[in-house]
Amino acid sequence: MSKSADIAMPVVRRLPRYYRFLLELEKSGVSRISSRELADKMGLTASQIRQDLNCFGGFGQQGYGYIVAQLREEIGRILGLDRAAGAVLIGAGNIGTAIAKQLVFSQGSLSLCGIFDKAPSVIGRRLVGLRVQGMDELDAFCAEQQPQVGILCVPDAAANEVVSQLMAHGVRAFWNFTHYDVALHFPGTVVENVHLEDSLMTLRYRLCRLSSEEQESEQAPF
Amino acid sequence: MSKSADIAMPVVRRLPRYYRFLLELEKSGVSRISSRELADKMGLTASQIRQDLNCFGGFGQQGYGYIVAQLREEIGRILGLDRAAGAVLIGAGNIGTAIAKQLVFSQGSLSLCGIFDKAPSVIGRRLVGLRVQGMDELDAFCAEQQPQVGILCVPDAAANEVVSQLMAHGVRAFWNFTHYDVALHFPGTVVENVHLEDSLMTLRYRLCRLSSEEQESEQAPF
Repeated sequence: MSKSADIAMPVVRRLPRYYRFLLELEKSGVSRISSRELADKMGLTASQIRQDLNCFGGFGQQGYGYIVAQLREEIGRILGLDRAAGAVLIGAGNIGTAIAKQLVFSQGSLSLCGIFDKAPSVIGRRLVGLRVQGMDELDAFCAEQQPQVGILCVPDAAANEVVSQLMAHGVRAFWNFTHYDVALHFPGTVVENVHLEDSLMTLRYRLCRLSSEEQESEQAPF
Repeated sequence: MSKSADIAMPVVRRLPRYYRFLLELEKSGVSRISSRELADKMGLTASQIRQDLNCFGGFGQQGYGYIVAQLREEIGRILGLDRAAGAVLIGAGNIGTAIAKQLVFSQGSLSLCGIFDKAPSVIGRRLVGLRVQGMDELDAFCAEQQPQVGILCVPDAAANEVVSQLMAHGVRAFWNFTHYDVALHFPGTVVENVHLEDSLMTLRYRLCRLSSEEQESEQAPF
């Protein structure tokens, strides 16, 4: 585990993808795979895979390949998937509701222990087996349950206050669906942003370019 | 517009963020801003902002700053937000439903014209004013409506078939919520992936590292 302390973030960001691929292979009964085969399946080069996996000890032997189950388990351990972490979800709107339901199916990396909202029409509803609680219940809940992760599905304008409140209870990790820049305003936090609208705007841009390239090539002389 | 053909992808990926910030400024009545002020608000350096915005013509004048509305409009134009693009959403489950509802509130960059699912229990339901249609209606719908974007909210195993079907109708841009690697299997497509589970696993990793760093510093001698 000590070696994983030094893994560069770009490699870290590839680990979930390795994990998913290896899990699929394991499920379909593959017990051993070469870096070349894994590379073909993942659209990477064999040398990039070897380089990535070397970062944390390099399993795999020349001419033998990787033992799928062992490698998947080790990556899972590095990602921390073998330890439970409690999470509270704030904001049970469209996205919050979808995320709560999705978490039930996820690889068990987070255990959702509380859902909060400020809308009286939502408070008291049941969602994935939990009662949606009011924001006035958040402090007492955090003091008792000590969640480690905050999932932010509130409107942008509410994010600052929610983060302050959660940080007062020791929450330092945020899965952020708002546009509020948590890491900028709260140094010392770890934040993964899911910016749906930005991703959509980028797609929009790339679609425009694709269309104009096609028009250009149609107009090009033979 | 011609200059924007050469914008590097890392810059493109920052444009939505500029767009959002400028829109906020515009809404709050700010008409002009210096690169330094914008940098402070966005957690960037003034020189990075000048460099980014120079990529597509560089508005802003030394000592005068940027005209907020003008810059916001130009970025919107570059992103293609001034043109409508029709989208079909496939898979009206948890995420699909949330995305459909979210699109209604988005900056108008996509116009959702059809929602499809294969589950009889879902077909016929109304969602954001549209009737969820069966997959057997997709071909006829695409032939008539000619959507440009496919939003993939289906299970991973169904993605290949859905993409093939949409591509046969000229859809080349995909907003992909599955783990299926569209770009790898279908060259010539533009794909924006939203990998919720990968983002969560990365957060899990960073939380682990944060906790072990804290333990290490607690154990460190004074």
